[in-house]
Amino acid sequence: MHHLHREKLFSLFDENQNGVVFIQGADTMYRYSTDYEFPFRQESNFWYLTGANEAECALLLDLNKEEYHLFVPERDTQYAVWHGYVKTKEQYQEQYKPDHLHYSNKLLTVLNQLNPERVFCLNEEQAEFIEDLDRGFNVDTEALVDALTYCRVLKTNWELDQMRKASQVNNEAYIQVMKSIKPGMFEYELKAVFNQVQLRHGLLQDAYNGIFASGVNASILHYVENNSQIKDGDLFLMDAGFECNGYASDFTRTFPANGKFTDIQAGIYQAVLDGQKAVIDAVKPGVKMEDLHMLASRIMMKGLIKLDIIRGDLDEMMEQNVFALFFPHGLGHFLGLDTHDVGGYPKGVDRIDRPGIKFLRARRELQPGMVVTIEPGIYFVPAVLEPAMKNPEQSKFLNVEKVKSLLDFGGVRIEDDIVVTETGHENLTNVPKEIEEIEALMAG
Amino acid sequence: MHHLHREKLFSLFDENQNGVVFIQGADTMYRYSTDYEFPFRQESNFWYLTGANEAECALLLDLNKEEYHLFVPERDTQYAVWHGYVKTKEQYQEQYKPDHLHYSNKLLTVLNQLNPERVFCLNEEQAEFIEDLDRGFNVDTEALVDALTYCRVLKTNWELDQMRKASQVNNEAYIQVMKSIKPGMFEYELKAVFNQVQLRHGLLQDAYNGIFASGVNASILHYVENNSQIKDGDLFLMDAGFECNGYASDFTRTFPANGKFTDIQAGIYQAVLDGQKAVIDAVKPGVKMEDLHMLASRIMMKGLIKLDIIRGDLDEMMEQNVFALFFPHGLGHFLGLDTHDVGGYPKGVDRIDRPGIKFLRARRELQPGMVVTIEPGIYFVPAVLEPAMKNPEQSKFLNVEKVKSLLDFGGVRIEDDIVVTETGHENLTNVPKEIEEIEALMAG
Repeated sequence: MHHLHREKLFSLFDENQNGVVFIQGADTMYRYSTDYEFPFRQESNFWYLTGANEAECALLLDLNKEEYHLFVPERDTQYAVWHGYVKTKEQYQEQYKPDHLHYSNKLLTVLNQLNPERVFCLNEEQAEFIEDLDRGFNVDTEALVDALTYCRVLKTNWELDQMRKASQVNNEAYIQVMKSIKPGMFEYELKAVFNQVQLRHGLLQDAYNGIFASGVNASILHYVENNSQIKDGDLFLMDAGFECNGYASDFTRTFPANGKFTDIQAGIYQAVLDGQKAVIDAVKPGVKMEDLHMLASRIMMKGLIKLDIIRGDLDEMMEQNVFALFFPHGLGHFLGLDTHDVGGYPKGVDRIDRPGIKFLRARRELQPGMVVTIEPGIYFVPAVLEPAMKNPEQSKFLNVEKVKSLLDFGGVRIEDDIVVTETGHENLTNVPKEIEEIEALMAG
Repeated sequence: MHHLHREKLFSLFDENQNGVVFIQGADTMYRYSTDYEFPFRQESNFWYLTGANEAECALLLDLNKEEYHLFVPERDTQYAVWHGYVKTKEQYQEQYKPDHLHYSNKLLTVLNQLNPERVFCLNEEQAEFIEDLDRGFNVDTEALVDALTYCRVLKTNWELDQMRKASQVNNEAYIQVMKSIKPGMFEYELKAVFNQVQLRHGLLQDAYNGIFASGVNASILHYVENNSQIKDGDLFLMDAGFECNGYASDFTRTFPANGKFTDIQAGIYQAVLDGQKAVIDAVKPGVKMEDLHMLASRIMMKGLIKLDIIRGDLDEMMEQNVFALFFPHGLGHFLGLDTHDVGGYPKGVDRIDRPGIKFLRARRELQPGMVVTIEPGIYFVPAVLEPAMKNPEQSKFLNVEKVKSLLDFGGVRIEDDIVVTETGHENLTNVPKEIEEIEALMAG
């Protein structure tokens, strides 16, 4: 299916130009100066264009002839002892179907034969590599990144299928955790349950370092220690996912460790859920992520007013950025070969200089084929709320007594993965999120 | 307990010299140019001296006063939102107990106050960092590595306790896999079972990328794909372990997927087991790893003669390196904060230029406090045996017909973690390895 990705990229370059694209695939990564080896994971742009998830490969795309040259390493017998058989050229050809297959040491020869006017590279490092081969080459490090970003933002059906598969396994893993959790367990025990479901289905690569946060830890947006003991009465916030053929899944659910929401937990949870569902309903071509961010914020503010946590005029509170005191991150991001996928900001669009929304990772009109996460949340972060309670401009909107009583509440986030379709959207996430559904599942 | 490690290091430097040790701790590692973050794991030398498993720290050891300066990052409020609370200086002081605590931006100031004649660094990169602070500093990149290697090779009781804990969990994880395996499963399903036991016990960091190899995959020494379906009649070779407070466990077991060894499997397995047990019995202070390597080789050769896989005079076969055709890797390695731990080769000792044993990772006399793996194996590696069968010098020792019939056998490796004690050794590995024990466990 990766030939479709190459065709898409070819179509973005001027037909008559005599240029080539060069990308060096990833090498195995080691930890510091040891031989601890990270599981190999191909660089996303290289994977996108080749489907080759193996180390030490490179590609040239001849933009004039629209031909694909794949370069593979030549191995010796010793390699076979340590890493298995040595793949023949025929096996590489059969597996990846390039127009031309070469051993890596032929790169300069092939480049000289193609004699390109310009070599399009991903970054300075790879451009320098080409220049070191021969100072005569004319390199460009801008056009390729822009073109690949453009390609990767709009997913093909095959790409969406990989994301559907990753999501199906993730659905099952979440449900398994919700059925397994008990107060008294440690957070990492739930990570153990979660990872086991993924690995059992052959998903071996996490999409990011997962968050398994109980109680107050849920107010730490980037909590990855996962080593606290879960208390009776805690909410448990879980944000994790694995990759299928490189494509990420990224959900969040928040649920009571003992299976039953308290009133205040249910109240805050419902405020987030109302915001999340309204935003998902609004997802369709032409909608802007920043507008969705503000929509979610507004609905969650209404919920906090209802709970008497904040007080005052909703419009005034929105203007004064009170929402960002409880929702200090962005609504969502693009999802694909990277969890925070490329393309969130088109050229010329900058981040919005306003609390909370300045962390929004995607700011553009949605189009069919885009995949975004929708993940609003409400958190009680002392580092944010304590200064706010001392600031008269902000504290006038806060029910300070109630806010103080909630400083150890933690937080709630609910995140689904959403495909933008021609007519609206498709939700890849199918893990219970209604309060009664969650309680029924956990009781069962 | 890490103060004992610093005292050990201080004792190796000349008392009257006005030098300092500088080590920069690890930063968080990211994958390529993305924000995919690897779980943080401290650089081993820094962890050894400080016990601080957190990012962006540095240390200075004043060799003259024998004082410990710890440098920690100064964080802003935004950090607290994403990563939890900002640790105060008092909290750092309480946790790590340095003689002097500073924020990282004070490094040059402190260095200028100490005004050392020499700054001992781990490597060129850190030496350049010091020189970039001020060209007047005189750096040395040799003495520190040697001194730290000397320290780390001989474990303290506290270090041994961490390795005992890692081993206890590993024992349980192996037994769980042996009870769970069934033909028809995929290799990664056993990785799922294995990892779950580790994570459930709070061991969150693997010591290396584990090998879960069925059938012919077991002949690939560095097999990490773990994605084949296990066949009835396959042997299953598993080589994996996790860290406890940074200290590795590293076992290997080989067992029949269906719970019952065939005759030829039992024969080859017993040859490896006899070699492994004889070598472990021989472990005591004063013994050399290279002699143990040859001892294991000799015993395994005897087993292969008994099975009529090789033919001829044992001494002659040893001289002709026939053993290396079946045992192409080293007998074992030092184990500690790194899986292939430091100190295998003392200064001036080189690798032995002889097949198989040239890959031996440790060549020195054993001393009390050292921890080594003992992991002999017999493999049928086509890339090794096919050329040997065509070489008259080697093929004369081979029962070619039998060897050919075993080219899809895979391999057997058995690995225990052994502490060298004053009087002999302590075996940290307690997973069944006798044939009847394995079959009884898997039947139960």
